[in-house]
Amino acid sequence: MKNNKNKEGRRKFIQQTAFASAGVMLINPLGLLSQTNKSLNMSKNIKSRGYAGKDEQSTLVKWDFERRPVGDNDILIDIKFSGICHSDIHTIKGHWGTQKYPQVPGHEIAGIVTAIGKNVTKFKIGDQAGIGCMVNSCMECDSCKNGEEHHCETTGMTGTYGSPEESSPTGITQGGYSNNIVVTEHFAIKIPNNLDLKYAAPLLCAGITTYSPLMRENFKKGDKIGIIGIGGLGHIAIKLAVSKGAEVYAFTTTADKKVDIISFGAKEVIVVDSMEKLVPYKGKLDYMLSTIPYDYDVASYASCVKPYGNFVQVGMPINGHLSINNFQMIFNRVKFSASLIGGIPETQEVVDYCAQNNILPRIEIIKAEEINDAWDKVVNKEARYRYVIDASTF
Amino acid sequence: MKNNKNKEGRRKFIQQTAFASAGVMLINPLGLLSQTNKSLNMSKNIKSRGYAGKDEQSTLVKWDFERRPVGDNDILIDIKFSGICHSDIHTIKGHWGTQKYPQVPGHEIAGIVTAIGKNVTKFKIGDQAGIGCMVNSCMECDSCKNGEEHHCETTGMTGTYGSPEESSPTGITQGGYSNNIVVTEHFAIKIPNNLDLKYAAPLLCAGITTYSPLMRENFKKGDKIGIIGIGGLGHIAIKLAVSKGAEVYAFTTTADKKVDIISFGAKEVIVVDSMEKLVPYKGKLDYMLSTIPYDYDVASYASCVKPYGNFVQVGMPINGHLSINNFQMIFNRVKFSASLIGGIPETQEVVDYCAQNNILPRIEIIKAEEINDAWDKVVNKEARYRYVIDASTF
Repeated sequence: MKNNKNKEGRRKFIQQTAFASAGVMLINPLGLLSQTNKSLNMSKNIKSRGYAGKDEQSTLVKWDFERRPVGDNDILIDIKFSGICHSDIHTIKGHWGTQKYPQVPGHEIAGIVTAIGKNVTKFKIGDQAGIGCMVNSCMECDSCKNGEEHHCETTGMTGTYGSPEESSPTGITQGGYSNNIVVTEHFAIKIPNNLDLKYAAPLLCAGITTYSPLMRENFKKGDKIGIIGIGGLGHIAIKLAVSKGAEVYAFTTTADKKVDIISFGAKEVIVVDSMEKLVPYKGKLDYMLSTIPYDYDVASYASCVKPYGNFVQVGMPINGHLSINNFQMIFNRVKFSASLIGGIPETQEVVDYCAQNNILPRIEIIKAEEINDAWDKVVNKEARYRYVIDASTF
Repeated sequence: MKNNKNKEGRRKFIQQTAFASAGVMLINPLGLLSQTNKSLNMSKNIKSRGYAGKDEQSTLVKWDFERRPVGDNDILIDIKFSGICHSDIHTIKGHWGTQKYPQVPGHEIAGIVTAIGKNVTKFKIGDQAGIGCMVNSCMECDSCKNGEEHHCETTGMTGTYGSPEESSPTGITQGGYSNNIVVTEHFAIKIPNNLDLKYAAPLLCAGITTYSPLMRENFKKGDKIGIIGIGGLGHIAIKLAVSKGAEVYAFTTTADKKVDIISFGAKEVIVVDSMEKLVPYKGKLDYMLSTIPYDYDVASYASCVKPYGNFVQVGMPINGHLSINNFQMIFNRVKFSASLIGGIPETQEVVDYCAQNNILPRIEIIKAEEINDAWDKVVNKEARYRYVIDASTF
């Protein structure tokens, strides 16, 4: 109870501080930083509360923990909304390898900046800010310098949750199913004021993960693009591809998503209740993007792409294991590759693009106590199309 | 015994005919066709003898069978040499699907034309001719018209052995482990006189299968090309890539091939006795070609290719099944694709290219009775580097 009281007090205090700062900003912008930081002990750990996995088997439970103090290059974000990604489930359940627990998942984070380190220039108190799938990298290698921090060549990127991190009081990074987060400013994304935070959250993983390979393809207006798996990632992929002029073919196993999918702008919906359904599309598409997060018949889907075209996998199956039938591959001649997320500049780009073009994910807001139920629904393909947690309920 | 006597008689007769024809050719080229065809009943089945698989488990055994009569567009080839390809083993053992038996394997066939149908224009009696992996296709679809008969869009290609074929007395095509073969002239390759038939044989599968994807890559002089699996296909791939100006990195699991591989022109040999050996090559190669005919760790090898580069699989594993670790693929960003063989024009091209540039496979001539032993050696990686059957021993 004592802890809870403390946390409630701190939260209220931060909210008040943010409000006060906004007021200060109007009359005294140069005095803002000192004014705010004076209200927060910058050398002290930040108390957080969220939902964590405690082991591979159990459901998520409430958890109080601490984050590192707000460093000179850090910002503190008061989380407002946090999206639920299938990756959260895979990670906590150990599908992708052994984990450290307790671990707070969540890498679709949107909120308000409530404190900034003395070197921070990208954000000011009161700004909308987001965090996606990574919170650090070496920033010195070619990939990092070229805005591909997720392909950092030295340390590798530090994931938003579950990555070893010396500065973290828990030894690993802790994600966005929580009420606040501390992050190096470089790894935070500016969220334009005209973009509602609850819609911004899913763009930080589902958005960039599909946007990056789509943009890499450099497709022409009218090109036929297949999107496989119309969930959190797939439905945003449709909207993005349509907005860039593609003719989109959506492949789903869930017949009752059909009306929604047409409303997202797809030209055609193929309900794949049998692999026979793919036959008429053999060699017809210019490109395909698959969001399926389990092992599946990759080659049969890939055969829908024209010879020498690209098929890109963004869904990540259990243990990363995919089976490919090479007999189909020798005949379809399609190039299979996989894509991770996107770098920080490109993540900023997709957020800005969606804000400018009003491309919004279809979301369902849930309370913290509904997380476990929502996870079951994600696994059972019942999400329509992204669950977003209202962080005020943590 | 009666059968054997008949066959011996027929073989002798054909040999004499060919010899006589060669003589006729010198003094009476226009009379050649009628002269030769007069010696052969063109409406009668052709008697053949070879080695066939009788079921999935057993070794190959001697077998007498018949081929279709020499049709108006057909040529009859007196086989001189026949290469042993790992595909022969996979097929007869049922690794790639259920087979019909008896079945004569062999799709690296080189010999002398001994009879031609009345419409034949590409060959004359006495010419050197070869057959690779296919003996028919629709010849009407875009792929066939564009010289990609192996990607025939209607009937699909008819494989040189084991494919259903109405005109064949055995119901399926029968391959090159035999003393003769009848084939539509379009699917026969002209073998230049300066190319010894025993060296020509392996070019018709091993040669074209590696040449086609290498040429598609359109690599620049000095590009770093990795070849994985240095057997029948791999060693020709090295020679071809080196002759086109590539810097070749050869990956083998057989340390004692090292000296040979350097003699083929490779710049470096990597003996992959542990996957750790691949680490120094991470992201270093421009392109990779894999001939490994079993399931293996594709993604670890593919990680040797630069991001967005191509990795092409030409070896075909059991049931076509390949496992790909998608965790590695999201980071290496390499494009995996597979390649079959090549079309007839391109097969002619590689044969001509090798004849002109004296690019010859490293072969070991064996007798028919040594086939089963040779198969074991191929599986055990003991071939150096292609077994070629002397067809006079059938």
